[in-house]
Amino acid sequence: MRSQGGTMCEANAYIMMKEGKEELVLEDIALLRPEEEGLYLQNIFGEQKRVKARIKEMNLLDHRIILQEL
Amino acid sequence: MRSQGGTMCEANAYIMMKEGKEELVLEDIALLRPEEEGLYLQNIFGEQKRVKARIKEMNLLDHRIILQEL
Repeated sequence: MRSQGGTMCEANAYIMMKEGKEELVLEDIALLRPEEEGLYLQNIFGEQKRVKARIKEMNLLDHRIILQEL
Repeated sequence: MRSQGGTMCEANAYIMMKEGKEELVLEDIALLRPEEEGLYLQNIFGEQKRVKARIKEMNLLDHRIILQEL
């Protein structure tokens, strides 16, 4: 069920930490919704995460959603 | 070059107007970036748009990015 070689359409979400590091938050994002205190993410397997971050950039060709830690 | 039947991975961006109407903003989004005054969108054909809106919800399974007019 892993997305390999662009056969799936979903993107992965990465977070840019305040100190400059980039970390993978969640793979195969199905749903992303800004909330009061950050972002709600859900992937195609039903995994959910809430992160204190804002969207920095979404590149759907690269399948990358870059978040910025708040 | 149109995306039909989910063969492409890109999503379409729709805006929810203040008065409740929903309108297509741009198809086949490649890049989305929040800016000072709204959102910058670019599609896979190189078309660019700037809208005074925020992201309301992104559903990548449905290929829909819903924006809320500011």
